[in-house]
Amino acid sequence: MPHRIVIVGGGYVGLYTALRLQKGLRQGEAEVTVVNPENFMAYRPLLPEVASGTLEPRHAVVPLRAVLRGTHFICGALTGIDSERRVATVQLEAGPPRELEYDQLVLGLGATSKLLPVPGLAERGIGFNSLAEAAHLRDHVLGQLEIAAATTDPELRRCALTFVFVGGGYTGVEAIAELQDMALDVLEGYPELDRTEMRWILVEAMDRILGTVSEDLADLAATELTARGIDIRTGTLLESAENGVLQLSDGTKLASDTLVWVAGTRPQSIVGRLGLPVDERGRLVVDDTLRVHGRSDVWSAGDCAAVPDPEQGGTCPPTAQHAVRQAQQLGDNLLLTVRGQAVKPFRYNSRGEFVTLGKNKAVGEVLGRKVNGTLAWTLRRAYYATQIPTWNRTVRVLGDWAVGMPFGHDVVDFGSREQPRGAFQEAADR
Amino acid sequence: MPHRIVIVGGGYVGLYTALRLQKGLRQGEAEVTVVNPENFMAYRPLLPEVASGTLEPRHAVVPLRAVLRGTHFICGALTGIDSERRVATVQLEAGPPRELEYDQLVLGLGATSKLLPVPGLAERGIGFNSLAEAAHLRDHVLGQLEIAAATTDPELRRCALTFVFVGGGYTGVEAIAELQDMALDVLEGYPELDRTEMRWILVEAMDRILGTVSEDLADLAATELTARGIDIRTGTLLESAENGVLQLSDGTKLASDTLVWVAGTRPQSIVGRLGLPVDERGRLVVDDTLRVHGRSDVWSAGDCAAVPDPEQGGTCPPTAQHAVRQAQQLGDNLLLTVRGQAVKPFRYNSRGEFVTLGKNKAVGEVLGRKVNGTLAWTLRRAYYATQIPTWNRTVRVLGDWAVGMPFGHDVVDFGSREQPRGAFQEAADR
Repeated sequence: MPHRIVIVGGGYVGLYTALRLQKGLRQGEAEVTVVNPENFMAYRPLLPEVASGTLEPRHAVVPLRAVLRGTHFICGALTGIDSERRVATVQLEAGPPRELEYDQLVLGLGATSKLLPVPGLAERGIGFNSLAEAAHLRDHVLGQLEIAAATTDPELRRCALTFVFVGGGYTGVEAIAELQDMALDVLEGYPELDRTEMRWILVEAMDRILGTVSEDLADLAATELTARGIDIRTGTLLESAENGVLQLSDGTKLASDTLVWVAGTRPQSIVGRLGLPVDERGRLVVDDTLRVHGRSDVWSAGDCAAVPDPEQGGTCPPTAQHAVRQAQQLGDNLLLTVRGQAVKPFRYNSRGEFVTLGKNKAVGEVLGRKVNGTLAWTLRRAYYATQIPTWNRTVRVLGDWAVGMPFGHDVVDFGSREQPRGAFQEAADR
Repeated sequence: MPHRIVIVGGGYVGLYTALRLQKGLRQGEAEVTVVNPENFMAYRPLLPEVASGTLEPRHAVVPLRAVLRGTHFICGALTGIDSERRVATVQLEAGPPRELEYDQLVLGLGATSKLLPVPGLAERGIGFNSLAEAAHLRDHVLGQLEIAAATTDPELRRCALTFVFVGGGYTGVEAIAELQDMALDVLEGYPELDRTEMRWILVEAMDRILGTVSEDLADLAATELTARGIDIRTGTLLESAENGVLQLSDGTKLASDTLVWVAGTRPQSIVGRLGLPVDERGRLVVDDTLRVHGRSDVWSAGDCAAVPDPEQGGTCPPTAQHAVRQAQQLGDNLLLTVRGQAVKPFRYNSRGEFVTLGKNKAVGEVLGRKVNGTLAWTLRRAYYATQIPTWNRTVRVLGDWAVGMPFGHDVVDFGSREQPRGAFQEAADR
């Protein structure tokens, strides 16, 4: 009987592990099943561009069924595993749960927003981890501009034009940079509004933004953002978010309808309920071959795992680059395991990093050299374009970029997509 | 003081009236304000292609702010008018309502789904009038394919693969044709499913589909759809839609999670509450100059108005072509009124009609000649491409079409966009 390999999660870890297996497995060696609650993988480095409308949401994703040829796909979410029986239980969108038997199990469950006990945060905040959130933020910001332009109430106008992002890491910086860039660009469509009325505030608890990139790059980014009118508050916390007022630890009170919470992530809660060893941050403990500690048949990598960092010591940071390299080694190790050979440790060489700051604006470090401005932005695009795993998407992304250049951002607010049955209900109610 | 012209509605009537005024008004002659609950106009003939994913939703719309240069725009919905004071009251997205004073008022409020008293319809049905509904249907159909592919329950599988459309007019035929075409095309991504398992049923009360187009064209369309496996039930009604079972008047019972209700439209309910004369179908009564009966300062056209048909007698059918021509005359008549000149009656010459039936498939009549297949489909595209009122959109639509040709439909289901705060709430709950 072929090996049964079940991969839970269709993010970087799940997808790249599956692709490695698809390429490496010989006929009849193993049967591979990928389980994910959505039938696509959001290509995360492109989310800021989805949020600014530079890319169509559909072009920033990988359709899992299109790339998983010869690999089974099940749309559903893991609810538990029975390690004795080697069975994973999956909740489907409809109908009874399914039990999947495995010989080898891969857990690539990623991460979700890590909330702190700030009063009002759960009710008011929005994250920036998924395509749904990125698309929502774009519509939300455009919706706030419409509210400000339509009202005659000065307080409401000020509230609508105040945008607060909490968390100055990679995600927060890219999100505020792209959205503010879009908002500035579309303002010509809103003759009622003036750019000096908009307030964009980035709140960071540490003493500098972009804590995980080099200090030089972080400084470059901070200078660029400040020059564009983004108000960076380092060493500052969000203390409460009640009754429409955001209270910061520096004493500032902001009336705002936009609270983007990007102050870190943590593993999905299911990870802690699997009966597997986790570290103090809730991540699965794996060895350098990506096998879960004490298990011969369970593997993990990416943001839900504490992977030893072969370069810096400690554990790997939660970046897309790390997840992809880990998944490639994980796939290779599964091939070796299926064939009864010795597995190998994960190795890593960083190729560089980029932070996008809006259209034609970015900072980066490539092979040890710093770049910024249009050059960094172009290199970043070129890099990601080559990394998208299907030719179809590459063409579409390049197409969006090409068409976007002469035309700039647009102001279409699709918030109504979030209530598709609204009109029908209204028609029924009278 | 310049004339104050308030245009309520940003659909065909509102947009084309405003564009006519923008082009024709001399400096200082009048101040024009357009009011619409969304900041875009869905380009309705393209909705079926949005539903099949051939076009990006954003490319099938006109951003009102981008085309309304020199015309004010307010994002909001009409709640009433005071004819004595000449004031329209508008509910905004946030904050207190606004009162807009007018000298001339244009009502282009369009239409909404007309529901019949079928038990369960209000809870289960979805319309096909808006961009939100078209995008939702695409995600919904792809979601049903995922449900069918993931489950081991044969009844659930059958239910998920049964798609019922009630209403065989223009909208219903185009919607079912495009969606079924997409579903057939994407099935290769679902090796678990077989095309013979899908059931697509079109229910029509009259004895033929496409009652408003010529019998020859309707026959062509019916033949094509039947050959593709669409089950057309003419002379049939939906009797109930309770407990997940659709009961048809021919005795058929269908377990289905997809009920698209496209059996006609009617004016928005606000139209009947304005104190203006309406006909038995709830439409504003206007004369052939598009002025509301008995009023010198209120105008209407399109689907919310009973416009005398100069070609066939009776009133004009609710088509995009009619609405656009009416709006152009309405705009001209406003210009004449502002200048104190005599207004002119609406005239019309139909240029032809097309029904899209999927990729490379259509039937049509142009200048009295019937066309079908790829030729009709290409002519339809060429016609609409030239009709889109901004060059930006034309390029993007042509781009989508060009890229789509080699690649076909894709299977990305974005249903998660409808709950953008879901992940954050979940993160908060534990």
